Amino acid sequence: MTTSTSAASATTRRGRPGYDQQAVLRAAVEVFNRHGYDSTSMGMLASELGLTKSAIYHHVESKEELLSLALDEALTALEEVLDQSAARGGEPMDRLERGIRATVLVLTDKLPFVTLLLRLRGNSPVEVAALERRRIFDQRMVERIVAAREAGGLRADIDPATSARLIFGTINSIVEWWQPGGRLSPDELADDVVKMVFQGLAAGPGHPGVR
Amino acid sequence: MTTSTSAASATTRRGRPGYDQQAVLRAAVEVFNRHGYDSTSMGMLASELGLTKSAIYHHVESKEELLSLALDEALTALEEVLDQSAARGGEPMDRLERGIRATVLVLTDKLPFVTLLLRLRGNSPVEVAALERRRIFDQRMVERIVAAREAGGLRADIDPATSARLIFGTINSIVEWWQPGGRLSPDELADDVVKMVFQGLAAGPGHPGVR
Repeated sequence: MTTSTSAASATTRRGRPGYDQQAVLRAAVEVFNRHGYDSTSMGMLASELGLTKSAIYHHVESKEELLSLALDEALTALEEVLDQSAARGGEPMDRLERGIRATVLVLTDKLPFVTLLLRLRGNSPVEVAALERRRIFDQRMVERIVAAREAGGLRADIDPATSARLIFGTINSIVEWWQPGGRLSPDELADDVVKMVFQGLAAGPGHPGVR
Repeated sequence: MTTSTSAASATTRRGRPGYDQQAVLRAAVEVFNRHGYDSTSMGMLASELGLTKSAIYHHVESKEELLSLALDEALTALEEVLDQSAARGGEPMDRLERGIRATVLVLTDKLPFVTLLLRLRGNSPVEVAALERRRIFDQRMVERIVAAREAGGLRADIDPATSARLIFGTINSIVEWWQPGGRLSPDELADDVVKMVFQGLAAGPGHPGVR
């Protein structure tokens, strides 16, 4: 996994000592996630960062620019997952497993950024554009699910759209509970997600749910 | 599954013809979910319902009372799931499966109410109280998961806390995509969730994820 700094570093500007744009961005995303983007004002951000509003405006034009940079960081990392794992080729089930595993790792690596992305409602053009990029990412993942199912790797009694929704739901819910630095490392989490999604949690066959 | 009207009907008051408190509540919850509770004003609600603000105040004291009634409707239905399925007894794995299935059915039956509950951030005493009831519900479900694992029904290589989080994540994500009246009935959805959670999506054993 590369660490993508994407559009954020490309437009870095200097403000107060001790803060660069990326530090302001990280702090802003935490505040957005805590209070909701719409409910957060630039005054609240300044207060949380211990800066004046004008010091924040050294780094970004607007609250919306912070949102745009944050969403781009999440989406660029997710898009790289599919590009990189597609380039490695392989059987459909292996490609799907790699895609799921790498997506989990992006979620843990970019946790606050992906959390922000997953909570968007499409209230502004920036949000609508981000949701469209997310839709394209989801669609590429659905194509892998369909390919894995057509190759006989996935059970045929759950339709591909539902399979995709359940897989996304399981992965995306990670942002609601997983904590960095806790008992469960990102790699262990990715292993557990892959095990549940493909093999299930039951200890043996025949119970419950009929194959 | 009983249809719980709970605290909502107990305090019904008469306002405009064509609206009772439950109708105002349903409409308000849709608006809260669309715009976020904090971003929704009583003026916005009135405009969406085609009522004056004072007409809404015939039905409820405040926006917070609407939130409280809505959360109670979701939580009461969820609590009844565990009470009813506990009363039926049975083996730990069967009790867990019944709990999962019944929870999915509550989510589909009370979709906007549970959606509101799952998006809470704890910004007010009403929200904190609801999150505490949700925590107790989750804890009772975790106890079923632990019991099923101790009885040998669940795989031992994923710890119970992670198993619980993955199960909740899968179930809760339903509110983000399932549509009433669509291709997938509530019972089919519950079947699919139980199949994936217990048996996984892979068509056969041995791929991927090691048992």
